[in-house]
Amino acid sequence: MSQQLPTAALIIIGNEILSGRTQDANTQWIADKMTQNGIRLMEVRVVPDIEDSIIKAVRDVKGTVDYLFTTGGIGPTHDDITAQSMARAFNKNLIVHPEARQMLLDYYGSEEQLTAPRMKMAMVPDGAALISNAVSAAPGFIVENVYVMAGVPRIMQAMLDEIIVNLRTGDPILSNTVTCDLGESMIAHDLEQIQNKYPSVEVGSYPHYRSGILGLSLVLRSTENDALHESTGKVIAMIRKHGGEPRAISVKTSGPTFESGQL
Amino acid sequence: MSQQLPTAALIIIGNEILSGRTQDANTQWIADKMTQNGIRLMEVRVVPDIEDSIIKAVRDVKGTVDYLFTTGGIGPTHDDITAQSMARAFNKNLIVHPEARQMLLDYYGSEEQLTAPRMKMAMVPDGAALISNAVSAAPGFIVENVYVMAGVPRIMQAMLDEIIVNLRTGDPILSNTVTCDLGESMIAHDLEQIQNKYPSVEVGSYPHYRSGILGLSLVLRSTENDALHESTGKVIAMIRKHGGEPRAISVKTSGPTFESGQL
Repeated sequence: MSQQLPTAALIIIGNEILSGRTQDANTQWIADKMTQNGIRLMEVRVVPDIEDSIIKAVRDVKGTVDYLFTTGGIGPTHDDITAQSMARAFNKNLIVHPEARQMLLDYYGSEEQLTAPRMKMAMVPDGAALISNAVSAAPGFIVENVYVMAGVPRIMQAMLDEIIVNLRTGDPILSNTVTCDLGESMIAHDLEQIQNKYPSVEVGSYPHYRSGILGLSLVLRSTENDALHESTGKVIAMIRKHGGEPRAISVKTSGPTFESGQL
Repeated sequence: MSQQLPTAALIIIGNEILSGRTQDANTQWIADKMTQNGIRLMEVRVVPDIEDSIIKAVRDVKGTVDYLFTTGGIGPTHDDITAQSMARAFNKNLIVHPEARQMLLDYYGSEEQLTAPRMKMAMVPDGAALISNAVSAAPGFIVENVYVMAGVPRIMQAMLDEIIVNLRTGDPILSNTVTCDLGESMIAHDLEQIQNKYPSVEVGSYPHYRSGILGLSLVLRSTENDALHESTGKVIAMIRKHGGEPRAISVKTSGPTFESGQL
């Protein structure tokens, strides 16, 4: 993509993903959101609930992207260690955030309800700004370019919707997908020619099995409507040239129809 | 977990995951396989189809675990750059593997069918061993402790089934899951006591929304049946003590029944 888009990365803090117990759903939701907002998601890491692992991942990644998101580990139980890990990653003290404390007081109703586990959810690295939690009590927080969110999808989604309006975004990344039943190796040469002709378009080739039949999805992505539309036409013509039957399963661009023979 | 289990990591090479187009299915399948075979999955990374990103991830991770698996990017198209990236990551030449060439020759039927894109699938870092591909033609390969597999789930699964018999494995990691409708912060203190009492058991607390209701899954994992069974009994008793209704949705251990009042 020729346009210089802002970049992001995601660190998922969660033993439950690494054990196979939980199918991660947050990556795709966040990736979609980035695509819609013209932010390139450059990397995702899933790390265990181990302080040193979290610290290393945060320190490794935060300087490589504009925005680093994390999910998970901000609740009240012993395995929720994200806030203390972030404090160490940034060499900050872990402090009680007065506003976060007030949020918890409003939620739980009285001072005596602010037990030690609940107060843990008011603790953030010194200097962090809060991300409000519309669903339950515990807020997320922001340190430098790191956005610390809940792991529960519904809460994470509400937090990211709040965050995203304040981020630098780019033009939405559009994508067209064309499928066919040709083998990848038959079209590899011509596909590369199309990729070379349209450097602002990212051309991907993804074989897949559906109902036991090997098929091929060709996916074109770009922020530039015209280049994307034109290159998609070339892909369709290429499939026909090799005796395949192109099926455009998703076209987000506007332009001449691909059936017109002009492409 | 007290037992010193072998460790693994996974690098998923795939723009299609980072763009949100594809929901990753390989992580959970591989994580399950590791759990069954007593190997701890320590980290997952998703990286883009960019040579430098792949090289950096492989170099970063390979020394931290016993086994590093990668998926994706071993086909014939221009966006399949895993073999060349691995060669660079290990400072090896990229060579035509004679056995891989023969596999492709058998699959495609004649020398003239071995086009340049297809020959790309016979190229591996010098010294690599092959992983056969029972589904299509392109083999995976092994360099040191790095196992390079296809990204298509059905092919990856066949490759990993072939690989795993040659790995050092541990006792299967068993897990029990108990759910309830209590808030996390109500049981946080007692749950930590249980965690402290059973260091060989990993106790995780995962809130979730189902049909708009916030529930809680308590997940206990260990290679040790007795400690796991006993600690699960403590968790069930703890839930009852706080007025909750424990539901054991999955118990893999054997021992006294949890209804007997003995626990």
